[in-house]
Amino acid sequence: MVRADTNRRIDGARLWASLMEMARIGATPKGGVNRLTLTDLDRESRHLFRRWVEAAGCTVSVDRMGTMFARREGTDPSLPPVMIGSHLDTQPTGGKFDGALGVMAALEVVRTIADLGIRTRHPIEVVNWTNEEGSRFAPACVASGVFAGVFKLEDALATTDPQGLTIGGELERIGFAGPLPVGGRPVHAFFELHIEQGPILEEEGTDIGIVTIANGQKWYEVTLTGVESHAGPTPMSRRKDALLGAARIVERVNAIGHAHEPRACATCGMIQVYPNSRNVIPGSVFLTIDLRHPDGDKLISMSKAIEAAIPEIAAATGLTCDYKLVADFPPQPFEPSCVDAVRKAAARLGLSAREISSGAGHDAVYMARVAPTAMVFVPCVDGISHNEAEDMKPEWATAGTNVLLEAVLEKAEVVGG
Amino acid sequence: MVRADTNRRIDGARLWASLMEMARIGATPKGGVNRLTLTDLDRESRHLFRRWVEAAGCTVSVDRMGTMFARREGTDPSLPPVMIGSHLDTQPTGGKFDGALGVMAALEVVRTIADLGIRTRHPIEVVNWTNEEGSRFAPACVASGVFAGVFKLEDALATTDPQGLTIGGELERIGFAGPLPVGGRPVHAFFELHIEQGPILEEEGTDIGIVTIANGQKWYEVTLTGVESHAGPTPMSRRKDALLGAARIVERVNAIGHAHEPRACATCGMIQVYPNSRNVIPGSVFLTIDLRHPDGDKLISMSKAIEAAIPEIAAATGLTCDYKLVADFPPQPFEPSCVDAVRKAAARLGLSAREISSGAGHDAVYMARVAPTAMVFVPCVDGISHNEAEDMKPEWATAGTNVLLEAVLEKAEVVGG
Repeated sequence: MVRADTNRRIDGARLWASLMEMARIGATPKGGVNRLTLTDLDRESRHLFRRWVEAAGCTVSVDRMGTMFARREGTDPSLPPVMIGSHLDTQPTGGKFDGALGVMAALEVVRTIADLGIRTRHPIEVVNWTNEEGSRFAPACVASGVFAGVFKLEDALATTDPQGLTIGGELERIGFAGPLPVGGRPVHAFFELHIEQGPILEEEGTDIGIVTIANGQKWYEVTLTGVESHAGPTPMSRRKDALLGAARIVERVNAIGHAHEPRACATCGMIQVYPNSRNVIPGSVFLTIDLRHPDGDKLISMSKAIEAAIPEIAAATGLTCDYKLVADFPPQPFEPSCVDAVRKAAARLGLSAREISSGAGHDAVYMARVAPTAMVFVPCVDGISHNEAEDMKPEWATAGTNVLLEAVLEKAEVVGG
Repeated sequence: MVRADTNRRIDGARLWASLMEMARIGATPKGGVNRLTLTDLDRESRHLFRRWVEAAGCTVSVDRMGTMFARREGTDPSLPPVMIGSHLDTQPTGGKFDGALGVMAALEVVRTIADLGIRTRHPIEVVNWTNEEGSRFAPACVASGVFAGVFKLEDALATTDPQGLTIGGELERIGFAGPLPVGGRPVHAFFELHIEQGPILEEEGTDIGIVTIANGQKWYEVTLTGVESHAGPTPMSRRKDALLGAARIVERVNAIGHAHEPRACATCGMIQVYPNSRNVIPGSVFLTIDLRHPDGDKLISMSKAIEAAIPEIAAATGLTCDYKLVADFPPQPFEPSCVDAVRKAAARLGLSAREISSGAGHDAVYMARVAPTAMVFVPCVDGISHNEAEDMKPEWATAGTNVLLEAVLEKAEVVGG
């Protein structure tokens, strides 16, 4: 194994300082960040990002979805770029690291390469994808989704938020309706560094997650209908209690998740009960189900189990049911040579590493459809994310960014010594 | 058995016409009634009621809780009255019969007695209790509660609605802050006719429910706390899912109800999940439990089972829990001679009848603490109540009101032939 050049390290303090300065834009009292896509705060973060990448010697282009590409030329401009990046938009009660870590790490990689005078054959582009979160405008990862041909540009630009504003209109408003066509150009590799958003790496004390695959996902909406009646005078044997049926589905979803452990996730996150009154037997319940697995066959097995369970439980509880599949993503493997670049980088740096799947969606998951892609995970405190309490240690960010540097340089091909 | 005088019957058509005319005040498009206590619509219903009872020869008094007493004198004014009545206020999505049946039936009894020139020793008073529903101002049955010494008048008058208006202020506003002290005077008997609000009488084809007892009730509020985390990256084995715990409590409450059948009721009616997002494992759940039984020992047994189950389920699901008893009413038996008067009345009228307990609370339940009291139930369609679809057949109302007439006359003691 070739040990990494011990002079070839990112500047951890500079990385952390940039992360903390970026986190001031939209900072919340609880220590998180509220910087929704295409708001004035988002614009402010884009301007700061632009100043930093231009100071590092990059040229910025903006595409028609507002995604920013900060390009450092290689020795051969005709070669497709190695892209590194993530997203700067956040959840309404988001943290400082979800997305911002990947963008600031990519910036730090380019700053380090510039500082060390490293030249690469391929250009390198630092990417800030628009609207990864899908919180203000659904769905998530829409800009990388258009880039990867999953969504049509016109549809994406016409998406509205709860106030009826469109992505296209808001891009114009903040001055980021760029001229560059979205996608349609080759990408040599794409790397995204991200906090794990789960508890495994921290609990194990592992430095680096080598992300081999992103979980497939199936989302259901279920409506159960019984009979709304008075809690006092209605005998137990004559009830058609929609909440009882929903409770049985929640239990079954959990059991299906456990049956496909350790890599399955099965969750009921949202429930609405009607009329939701203390002394009225619930007549109707709306429930969501979120199933995930990195193995496509097991995901299908989980969904078949759910689809059989819903009518069975409804019938046994005297209810009628209705359900529909509202999201359906296959597992997305990452490209083996890119994954291997991450693996080798961690090894050369003497960092502990383990293979892991990505439970959540990321821009890298769509990009993997059109370019060799890999992700690098680092631990986060208590596995907490989508939460203002989201936190990580500076040394974790430093370790992940050094891995990113090595993997990027392998793919971009260093020229000279 | 003395057969009822076949001339001594109420006028079913007149009863139904009055019910339907009263139902126009606050009528909803779905066929229900929205006539919340102490609103202008409530005032309108009180004025109509007053005109009718005065036309039937009664003198109206109003007490300090706004309850209206329409008195037909007997031969001996010193004797305590036989009261008949219920309430004219409704739920926001209430029906035409819940409460109004009992008041219109009482009016019809007095109209009939007047038409037939029947004299009684005891005075008869038709009662319209203020705020039985407890929907706008909690709790329910507050006026009968003050009458029965369960609540203090000052506290009741100070109760606020969600807009901060008080019962006392609203009574003044609609002109029904009466001079009569609340309670503190003897009542010879109180009879209340009400729809069953449950499915038993209709399913059996039984005309009359002889209500022997009102169920005791215990209401709990439960909070379960787990850890809010991302549905994608959090492995099944590391979850602390508050909705899973709540689902298990819902199932256990149902089981406890079934274990104490046929007379137990156990219901989870209200649930609030946090953050209630499709891809977030619920970190916290608020749940209500409503337990009812006519047997005090069994009600205690049910509550002990719940109080043991909540922490057991929480611990097994990795959660912490907190619960409190927020309402606690013992079973209330009705007075045997009044209950017997109802039983004999049904028999003399050739109506089918069966003993039944009241699952719901009524003004009669508080009145039973201070006066010999009984209730008469009649069927309602599908057992539906607290619902704009609430319905009944005219013949059921007629049958119940004839029973009321006979029971009232027994207690008020007919003078002469």
